[in-house]
Amino acid sequence: MTKTVLLTGFEPFNKETINPAWEAVRTLAGWAGEGFVVEVRQLPCVFGNAQEVLKDAIGSLRPDVVIAVGQAGGRVDMSVERVAINVDDAPIADNAQIQLVDQPVVADGPAAYFSTLPIKAIVHALRDAGLPASVSQTAGTFVCNHVFYGLMHHTAASATKAGFIHIPYLPQQAAAHPGAASMSLAEVIRGLKVSIEVALTADEDLHEAGGRIH
Amino acid sequence: MTKTVLLTGFEPFNKETINPAWEAVRTLAGWAGEGFVVEVRQLPCVFGNAQEVLKDAIGSLRPDVVIAVGQAGGRVDMSVERVAINVDDAPIADNAQIQLVDQPVVADGPAAYFSTLPIKAIVHALRDAGLPASVSQTAGTFVCNHVFYGLMHHTAASATKAGFIHIPYLPQQAAAHPGAASMSLAEVIRGLKVSIEVALTADEDLHEAGGRIH
Amino acid sequence: MTKTVLLTGFEPFNKETINPAWEAVRTLAGWAGEGFVVEVRQLPCVFGNAQEVLKDAIGSLRPDVVIAVGQAGGRVDMSVERVAINVDDAPIADNAQIQLVDQPVVADGPAAYFSTLPIKAIVHALRDAGLPASVSQTAGTFVCNHVFYGLMHHTAASATKAGFIHIPYLPQQAAAHPGAASMSLAEVIRGLKVSIEVALTADEDLHEAGGRIH
Amino acid sequence: MTKTVLLTGFEPFNKETINPAWEAVRTLAGWAGEGFVVEVRQLPCVFGNAQEVLKDAIGSLRPDVVIAVGQAGGRVDMSVERVAINVDDAPIADNAQIQLVDQPVVADGPAAYFSTLPIKAIVHALRDAGLPASVSQTAGTFVCNHVFYGLMHHTAASATKAGFIHIPYLPQQAAAHPGAASMSLAEVIRGLKVSIEVALTADEDLHEAGGRIH
Repeated sequence: MTKTVLLTGFEPFNKETINPAWEAVRTLAGWAGEGFVVEVRQLPCVFGNAQEVLKDAIGSLRPDVVIAVGQAGGRVDMSVERVAINVDDAPIADNAQIQLVDQPVVADGPAAYFSTLPIKAIVHALRDAGLPASVSQTAGTFVCNHVFYGLMHHTAASATKAGFIHIPYLPQQAAAHPGAASMSLAEVIRGLKVSIEVALTADEDLHEAGGRIH
Repeated sequence: MTKTVLLTGFEPFNKETINPAWEAVRTLAGWAGEGFVVEVRQLPCVFGNAQEVLKDAIGSLRPDVVIAVGQAGGRVDMSVERVAINVDDAPIADNAQIQLVDQPVVADGPAAYFSTLPIKAIVHALRDAGLPASVSQTAGTFVCNHVFYGLMHHTAASATKAGFIHIPYLPQQAAAHPGAASMSLAEVIRGLKVSIEVALTADEDLHEAGGRIH
Repeated sequence: MTKTVLLTGFEPFNKETINPAWEAVRTLAGWAGEGFVVEVRQLPCVFGNAQEVLKDAIGSLRPDVVIAVGQAGGRVDMSVERVAINVDDAPIADNAQIQLVDQPVVADGPAAYFSTLPIKAIVHALRDAGLPASVSQTAGTFVCNHVFYGLMHHTAASATKAGFIHIPYLPQQAAAHPGAASMSLAEVIRGLKVSIEVALTADEDLHEAGGRIH
Repeated sequence: MTKTVLLTGFEPFNKETINPAWEAVRTLAGWAGEGFVVEVRQLPCVFGNAQEVLKDAIGSLRPDVVIAVGQAGGRVDMSVERVAINVDDAPIADNAQIQLVDQPVVADGPAAYFSTLPIKAIVHALRDAGLPASVSQTAGTFVCNHVFYGLMHHTAASATKAGFIHIPYLPQQAAAHPGAASMSLAEVIRGLKVSIEVALTADEDLHEAGGRIH
């Protein structure tokens, strides 16, 4: 039976005119491999709404794997997030001009959820594919973490594998942010394909160090 | 009634001969202000043992406030940790030469605990005192996070306010790590005093942004 | 009359198996546009020898433009060097296992030479082309600066436009250096083409800020 | 015969209300050791004027050693500058609201001057004293480099040892610049004393690596 992979990317935010996550994700609409097909959705960069759009997509598609992808301007690699925390603490306003401070993503929800993607196996495969990657211990406290937490909360009781990957600026964005790293669109797309394939096929995660001293 | 504040610092690790956390913490042994007195303990940098020493101290002292302090070599400021996660994933071996990978700190424990210190108020007061400080969204996945998680798990059902503060290298350590930032011992001690006073007196935390986009 | 552009890249050094500069430069061998053709040379990463190979190439090709390209592992963008200084002060040994300390590149040479490339115009054009770029105020004190200084000394009395561009790791290198930024080979090649075209056509440099406070 | 050491620090710039260089330097006015006494001057953060004030001081004091000190917001250590370059290329306006771009500091001056301080010996002594320090390969292209170049040009024909040291923000400044490193005033003052003593006593510089790959 064909498995469904849901890939999401955000609309532009924080004064950018593009979002590298959506630029990469949208190219994979309909991408199909052995036994799977990819569906994509764009999420608004808005607290609350972003989760609603995601839940609707999960409700209608019933995906086996969900990977939410977000821009992390200033990061150097594809960082596969380990944990989503139950707090919205926004350093900037979202696209609806709302800046939440220390609100729970889900009232009475647990403090955090761990990704159910095989994060070590994905990082390992990305590096094997010649792509810079690492496990990240924080997805921040803005809309990315909000969506990641909402995703894990919504899929907690199911068999769906789900998680979040942060990606750097595209080169054309970094051109306007001197000092910021970038990854090309082609590399990001290749990295997302690798991530999807590992998420579909890894029965369990690799036992490899991927943490940080602090 | 006099309140008890328990302050802990680790023994040196990762080839250092001193640990700035312990160097600062030990100077505060017996420090007393209006209505409180400080007790200090050194923790081994060893998974498991560190928690045992901490639990014993909490059991015998029954502190009102516990602040665990740890070295974050390379960080630039006093970073007040927001959240402890239930995973040990060590990039280096601990002082007992054990390198845990993807083990829970507490089997069947929740995915994370939030600090019960008034973290925003502490950061605000540190900055007002002319000290560089920030809220941190990750305490890493090594022995610091391990102790932080254990501390929060152990005090979860109590009224004890507890949390973790990471501090930079001391100048003499940074002298051997070109490129790494530092804070002087005097500034760190002053910062810990400020943190203790805020933890003792803040009835609730400040409603101020302290998060990160990613 | 057809102009000749000499492009050089180094052999791998510092335990790398490839050098992104040479990987990019060698693809441009024979690249010809309106009124110009590109010649390429690989330089050894060896004090002294690198300069000899470069001088021989200049002697035989009599190029109108020379751009030496080098790997700057850890940098985030194409950094167009402003100045070469008359000192070899190597933090690591070169490929002949020689580690020079505080030797002049050219005995009795001037303290420094400025690039004769239109560095501001190149950075401007790279950014316009959607590529991250900046003016760099230091090319270091290793073999890259050594070659850059030697190049400028050798072409000082001529009409040849000459200079140096540092480039980041390739993604497959950064995959082995967690925390390091990268640029894709395709982007670097595109950036070198832009740089060559600007160097050939700019009559004078742009009057745009490109410096640093410190 | 008593030697004279001239120490300079700038007035605040770039929206700061203090300048750590001047805060440290002014405490050393009249500091005297075996065979030397320290004179201090504040320099305006203004192209041209800063040099005039410095030249006047040199003219009247006839110092044996001159160390100009400047704020490098964001740097982590005391960085002893190796080389001053003959260019003003300001990323921000100076305190007279002038923003020079690609002007020579001294028309027809050489491209650069090397510090005549024993920079390796100073860095070595600072580290021995437990203070973070490094050789820096660029003093930027703003008023610090401008003064450094002017200083070296003015003392080029004399026996005066002269150079420039950049220092980080003070903690109270870093408190307002999250992410920026700092050094305490006491550490900086101690470091300047060490630097002065080494500058006075070192007959020649140490033969130690202090360069950068790029």
